[in-house]
Amino acid sequence: MAQIKKKVTKPAKVETQLPQITFDYNNMMASHIGEEGLRLADFETSKDDYKSAFNYVKMHRGTEWLRWTELPYNQLEKRGEEQSIVSEILETAKQIRKDAEYFVVLGIGGSALGPMAVFQALCNLRHNDLKRAKRGAPKFYVEDNVDPERMNSLFGVIDLKKTVFNVITKSGSTSETMSQFLIIWDILKAEFGDEAKNHIVATTDAEKGNLIKIAKKEGIKTFVVPDGVGGRFSELCPVGLLPAAVLNIDIKKLLKGAAAMDKRCKDADIKTNPALAAALTSYLAMKRGKNVSVMMPYADSLKLIADWYCQLWGESLGKNVTLDGTAVNVGQTPVKALGVTDQHSQIQLYTEGPFDKIITFISVENFRSDIVIPKSAQEYPNVAFLAEHTMGELIKTELLATEYALMKNKRMNATIKLPEVSAYTIGQLLEFFMLETAYAGALLNIDTFNQPGVEEGKNATYALFGRTGYEEKAFEINSAPKKLGAFIV
Amino acid sequence: MAQIKKKVTKPAKVETQLPQITFDYNNMMASHIGEEGLRLADFETSKDDYKSAFNYVKMHRGTEWLRWTELPYNQLEKRGEEQSIVSEILETAKQIRKDAEYFVVLGIGGSALGPMAVFQALCNLRHNDLKRAKRGAPKFYVEDNVDPERMNSLFGVIDLKKTVFNVITKSGSTSETMSQFLIIWDILKAEFGDEAKNHIVATTDAEKGNLIKIAKKEGIKTFVVPDGVGGRFSELCPVGLLPAAVLNIDIKKLLKGAAAMDKRCKDADIKTNPALAAALTSYLAMKRGKNVSVMMPYADSLKLIADWYCQLWGESLGKNVTLDGTAVNVGQTPVKALGVTDQHSQIQLYTEGPFDKIITFISVENFRSDIVIPKSAQEYPNVAFLAEHTMGELIKTELLATEYALMKNKRMNATIKLPEVSAYTIGQLLEFFMLETAYAGALLNIDTFNQPGVEEGKNATYALFGRTGYEEKAFEINSAPKKLGAFIV
Repeated sequence: MAQIKKKVTKPAKVETQLPQITFDYNNMMASHIGEEGLRLADFETSKDDYKSAFNYVKMHRGTEWLRWTELPYNQLEKRGEEQSIVSEILETAKQIRKDAEYFVVLGIGGSALGPMAVFQALCNLRHNDLKRAKRGAPKFYVEDNVDPERMNSLFGVIDLKKTVFNVITKSGSTSETMSQFLIIWDILKAEFGDEAKNHIVATTDAEKGNLIKIAKKEGIKTFVVPDGVGGRFSELCPVGLLPAAVLNIDIKKLLKGAAAMDKRCKDADIKTNPALAAALTSYLAMKRGKNVSVMMPYADSLKLIADWYCQLWGESLGKNVTLDGTAVNVGQTPVKALGVTDQHSQIQLYTEGPFDKIITFISVENFRSDIVIPKSAQEYPNVAFLAEHTMGELIKTELLATEYALMKNKRMNATIKLPEVSAYTIGQLLEFFMLETAYAGALLNIDTFNQPGVEEGKNATYALFGRTGYEEKAFEINSAPKKLGAFIV
Repeated sequence: MAQIKKKVTKPAKVETQLPQITFDYNNMMASHIGEEGLRLADFETSKDDYKSAFNYVKMHRGTEWLRWTELPYNQLEKRGEEQSIVSEILETAKQIRKDAEYFVVLGIGGSALGPMAVFQALCNLRHNDLKRAKRGAPKFYVEDNVDPERMNSLFGVIDLKKTVFNVITKSGSTSETMSQFLIIWDILKAEFGDEAKNHIVATTDAEKGNLIKIAKKEGIKTFVVPDGVGGRFSELCPVGLLPAAVLNIDIKKLLKGAAAMDKRCKDADIKTNPALAAALTSYLAMKRGKNVSVMMPYADSLKLIADWYCQLWGESLGKNVTLDGTAVNVGQTPVKALGVTDQHSQIQLYTEGPFDKIITFISVENFRSDIVIPKSAQEYPNVAFLAEHTMGELIKTELLATEYALMKNKRMNATIKLPEVSAYTIGQLLEFFMLETAYAGALLNIDTFNQPGVEEGKNATYALFGRTGYEEKAFEINSAPKKLGAFIV
């Protein structure tokens, strides 16, 4: 395969200047998109709001449900005489890489989206298809659904003897994850008896819930989801760090990147605090009726970062009551898209449809490899112009062109720029989004960290399964309007 | 692995009663969700509108950009003395299965989304991870982006000698697909000389464009994208049928399913025409400001059907002018979600956020396999209730519970029910969505079949690449407002 004109890009990195991500919101402004855009006066008018949102996050950081703000620091610290959590993770990860050919996460929501997003960003895009020597780590699967066909397909491709499962649920009562765990634990016990425990690592609460009890009884290795770290804010604790470490991702750099972003967000100044600038521009857009937020990375490696963002943004901001108890119905609907692919799917709508959305691009300056398009079709003008450009140039140029087209059509858009995709920049990006979400929630004056709206469905499931204690709910469901045949075609 | 309590479900199929999908819109109605819902009077008032939308589609079917309506029939018909297109596809597919260990589609938009969606629905969810004997077909890759890291990762896992590429572009001038083709063609020529052509099949226009010219010159096997079949309506022509056939999917059943749905949609009666009922309820929801349409299958096998739907719905309906030339900005933003997974990501927002969306579930009655949850944690009430239920029951019950929770919170939702996932029901589903889209576009009185909004970005790309003839566009881009450092943090 010597013929591919591969260009392996070596990012020019000066030790003293670490790659820093930036947030560019020029195309959110009236100076660029006209009347649809924001003005400096809007920022001025909102000054009290965003300063108090900043202060809310600052005051609460490290307490209650904002304990995730300390993860970039405390996961690296020694715990009294004990080694740091990161050191313990690295030891376990090393052992798993030695023992296992397959590493399977059982989790759902934040317990799955974070591990998947970081995996896709920082491992080979076809990790599982590579030979073991090239992979340097087990094959990686994340099981975040209770579809029986999917579970059976997993059993068809793994070898249990060489598999380690990482079951992740803070509460230990997530029906989906616990069903998977019960099925797998049953099989492991039957197959390996007392050795079954060597095939499981549990990441859960230190004391509460079923999973920690089972783990203690059975001697299963555990890692702790710290108090005050909700699922969607948990990527930088063992929930995300263990899978990343197993996959040979530099988790210290990931945390250092997050810490670097956290430090940049130390003032209530939208000129220096990128997460605050992003939260404010999104908030102002929401106030103008932009109820859709599209996240569109231009890199396959960042595709699942958009999925992770969608949970973070949707579940945090979609609320029906303010902190003062006022009834509202707020929250932007997050939409994931991928550049350039979705130019051939969604850009038509973004360009001509309703003025109801903001589009945030994520760009990559230096791809980790590149390919030159050959000069072999000079007689065809429609393709000849591509010759001797690289694919990297093409994807970056199409992003510029799309930004331009949206600007020209007066569509609010912004771009998060990554100099490169690395553990250090991904750490920054995750922290950026989490802080942005915390600020945006504070601007909306809602509880960013709960999710009461999912309880109704959970309780209905319990009732439909005849769980003791849910008889009233079952009665309620039974009394609801029945489906009418007239409305079924 | 004898311990898994697998339940292999044999759907009780009576030969005379083929499995038929249905559209259930009870939870779109005021009878179920109260004031937010639709009333029979709304249907009455819209009667003229939906009858004329139906008639528009009926009158134009088989002509201009509605020639896709004939695909379920004409792909199976003999062409004079020649065999049918399907027969030709099956022959080619058989040969590819014999020759190739890797089958790679090069395409973007409809040329990629359809093949991927049908593959995921009807092959093993981990097809590529299976051993060849179990797979019965080559490994399958779809390259629908110009990310250089992704292309390089592909080269890292395939063996060119055993690879067949299917390059798909109707126009033959899609920059992304043609870049990929030029790179691969260059490598194939260098590696195999005159035999290079045996590693490519081109699916393109019969006469127009670069690709057909190159193919004729080089002796590459071609299939035709028929006139009047746009990318997002092309799954049931060779664009989708060849990849499906290579993967051993029963393409005749796929077409027969589509034909069966087409036949059910023969009257302007929302009581019998499911696609018309769906289009009308969506249209009425849009008129009430529901500018978001969530597609949420409860089955991993249908996850990419939602992606395919998002292109179809977004690109067809997102328009800025009516057929009369009136300026508008219409179009629902399609959102893909997956049940139960996204209950832990998006349901909070759908339950408590703005009343700005409709949610369409896709349910599966009979999964192709199932697994029993064991009775091994009876001491833990939070999980004990799951014992001896199956995963299939759990996923279906969670869907019922989520429908109920949304109904109780007055959220418009509907459910498309599949008795099973098979070529026959998937054919119905694809045809249902295409007809629904055609009706919805007619209701909105827009051109459903064009995509002028993507031209601006294309032209800007040409200009930025210095293509001859785009000097004025380059000048225009150069004259646009520059990015200001003040809005970059």
